[in-house]
Amino acid sequence: MAKSNLPKVRALCPIHAVAYDPERGELVLLDQTLIPREEKYLRLDRVDAIVEAIQALRVRGAPAIGVAAAYGLCAVARHSQALTIQQLEAELDGAADAIEAARPTAVNLMHAMARLRRAKNCGAANARQLIGSLEKAARQLYDEELAASTLMGKHAFKLFHDGDGVITHCNTGALAAPGAGTALGTVLYATQRGMKLHVYADETRPLLQGGRLTTWECLQQGIPCTLITDSMAAVVLRDGKVQLAVVGADRIAANGDAANKIGTYGLAVQCRVHRVPFFVVAPTSTVDLNAADGRAIPIEQRSADEVRGAFGVRWAPEEVGVYNPAFDVTPAKLISGIVTERGLVRPPYRAGLRQVCKQQR
Amino acid sequence: MAKSNLPKVRALCPIHAVAYDPERGELVLLDQTLIPREEKYLRLDRVDAIVEAIQALRVRGAPAIGVAAAYGLCAVARHSQALTIQQLEAELDGAADAIEAARPTAVNLMHAMARLRRAKNCGAANARQLIGSLEKAARQLYDEELAASTLMGKHAFKLFHDGDGVITHCNTGALAAPGAGTALGTVLYATQRGMKLHVYADETRPLLQGGRLTTWECLQQGIPCTLITDSMAAVVLRDGKVQLAVVGADRIAANGDAANKIGTYGLAVQCRVHRVPFFVVAPTSTVDLNAADGRAIPIEQRSADEVRGAFGVRWAPEEVGVYNPAFDVTPAKLISGIVTERGLVRPPYRAGLRQVCKQQR
Repeated sequence: MAKSNLPKVRALCPIHAVAYDPERGELVLLDQTLIPREEKYLRLDRVDAIVEAIQALRVRGAPAIGVAAAYGLCAVARHSQALTIQQLEAELDGAADAIEAARPTAVNLMHAMARLRRAKNCGAANARQLIGSLEKAARQLYDEELAASTLMGKHAFKLFHDGDGVITHCNTGALAAPGAGTALGTVLYATQRGMKLHVYADETRPLLQGGRLTTWECLQQGIPCTLITDSMAAVVLRDGKVQLAVVGADRIAANGDAANKIGTYGLAVQCRVHRVPFFVVAPTSTVDLNAADGRAIPIEQRSADEVRGAFGVRWAPEEVGVYNPAFDVTPAKLISGIVTERGLVRPPYRAGLRQVCKQQR
Repeated sequence: MAKSNLPKVRALCPIHAVAYDPERGELVLLDQTLIPREEKYLRLDRVDAIVEAIQALRVRGAPAIGVAAAYGLCAVARHSQALTIQQLEAELDGAADAIEAARPTAVNLMHAMARLRRAKNCGAANARQLIGSLEKAARQLYDEELAASTLMGKHAFKLFHDGDGVITHCNTGALAAPGAGTALGTVLYATQRGMKLHVYADETRPLLQGGRLTTWECLQQGIPCTLITDSMAAVVLRDGKVQLAVVGADRIAANGDAANKIGTYGLAVQCRVHRVPFFVVAPTSTVDLNAADGRAIPIEQRSADEVRGAFGVRWAPEEVGVYNPAFDVTPAKLISGIVTERGLVRPPYRAGLRQVCKQQR
C-alpha cells in the first residue's frame, strides 16, 4: 500500500486521550478509569484536579501524562487570578512543582515540566505573552509526540511478519500517547498497512489497563485481540502463539534498563526463556540519560486496595498485607531492541540512546 | 516443640471445606465462591447440585473435590427413590458418571469415583448395605486425605528454614483438602512447630483463589502473608524476598509433569531463572500413573467471562476474545521435588512416583 494513499494517523485513530481547548483554556481528558464502560471527557483547569487526574490514572501512559501535564499548566495559567506577572510566575512555579510530583516514575512528566519552565522563563512582558509561550511549548510537545507515534510505527514495521502473534502488557495505544501510541501504536501502524497481526493482551493487574483499555482499542480499531490473564503469558509463549513482544516504557535509563508497568519484567523473562524477541517502544521523551541504570529509577508504590480488588469491588480480606509496586525495571540484557521515533536502537544501548537523544528536548 | 504436645491438625485447623452429615445423608460444603465475604455452608443431596458445586468451584482443590465427589455419591444414594437395589445401582452409575465428568483435570475426582464404584460392586444384599459400603469407602477416603495432609507437612518440614519467604499459587490449604491442605498445609504445619515463615500469595487470576482464599486462611491461622498480583512474582523472586515455592497439583503424570492452576508453569519458570527451589505438594491420590507425561493430562477450558471480570463485575469489553485454560502443566524438569504423604520424591520422578503409589487406592 503506497504511503501517499494513507489518511493521517489522527483520522485513523479517533481516540483522543489528551487535548487542549484553546478557547476555554482547559485540559481535556478522556477519563480512562471509566473505559470501557463509559466515554466521559473531563475539563480541568485547577492544579489540584490535574494532579488528582494523573494520580488516579484518569490519564496514563508516559507520553500522555507528559502532554497532560503541559496542557494542564497552560490551563492553570489561563485561569489564574494573579494580578501581576510576578504573581503568575510564582503560581506557575508552584503548580509545576505539584504536577511534577504527582507520579514519580514516568520521566515524561519531568521532561514536560522542565520544558514548560523554560517557556515560562522566556522574558515575557505580560501575562498574555507568558501564556502564549506556555501554550506554544505545550502544543509543540503534543505535536512532537504525535509525530513520534507515527515514526515509531514506521521504525517498528520491519519487526513484524504477516500472521505474527504479538503479546503486549498494559496499554500503549492511542490512550497512552498522542496519535496511535507507542507499542500498541506500532501494531496499529502495521495493521493499517495490511499486515495481519493478532494481539495477545495481558490484562495487567492490578489496574487492568490491558483488560480494559487495550482490548477496547483493539476492538475500536479492528485489530484481532485475545485477552489473557498475566499468568497465561508463559503458556501462550510456550505454545508458539506469539512471535514478538512489544511493550512501552515509563523511563529508560542510559544503559537501556527500562521501567514499565509491573509485570513487564516477568514477561521479559518469559520471552527470553521461550526465545521470543522482546522490544520496548518509547519516544525519546521517555529516555532519562541522567539515570545511569535501572537502580536510579524511582518506583511508585501504590495503594494496597488496588490489589485487594478491582473496579470498585474488593475480594481479598482488607486486613491482608499487600505489596504493590506500580512498575518494575527490565534489565537491558532482556531487551532485543528499543524503538524510538528516531530509529531502532540495538544493544549495547548506551551509545545508541545517547545518539537518538542528541536533540532531546 | 515435642510432637506429643501438639493438638491434632483438625483442632488447629478449624476450616471444614468438605464434610458429610451422616444423620441426614448430606454432602456439606463451605461455599468457596463466597469466601472471604461470607461463610455459608451448602447441604447437597442431588446429583445436579453436586455437579454444579464442583463446576462452579464452590468446592475446589484436588483432594477436596475427590472427597466431595465421594460424599456426594453417598448423599445421592441416601436420597434415592429407587425401589430395587438394581434401580439404585443404575442410578448411582449414572450419578458417578455425571460427577466424574464435572471437571476434567483433577484426577482425584476419577480416583474417588473409581473407588466408590468398587464399593458399590461389593455384592450388597440390599440398599442399606450398599449405602453402608459407599459411606465407609467415602469416609476412608476422607480419613486418608486428612492423614495425608499431616504427613505431607511432616515430609516437607525439612525444606523450610526459619525466616524463609514462601511463594505459593492458588489455594492449597484447608479449603483445598481435608486437614491442613497440601502446599499451604505444609506451611501451616511448619508454622505450628515454631518455624517463622512469610507467605507471598499470588492472587491467582482469573478466579482469585490466592487473593480470596489463601489470604483468608493465612489470616485465620496467624500466618504472615503478603498478597501480590501474579505479575509481581518475578520481582519478588528477583529481589530475594522468597527462598522457596510450594504449589499443589491437580494431576501428576508418571514422569513428574504436574498440572496445576494456570500460572503455575510461569511461576516455575521464574523460580528456575531466579534459582528458587520449586516444590509440588500433593497426595498420591493426585498421581496418575496412566498418564505417561503432561501431554496426556486434559486441560479444562473455562468461560471467557471469568477473564473479562471477577467477582460479579465485568471490566473488559464483552466482545473481546479470551483464552482461559484453567490449568497448565509444569514439566518435571522445573520441579525440585514432589512431596507426597509417603515421602519426598526427587527427580527423576518415574521410579519414585511408582514407589510411593504402590499402595495407590
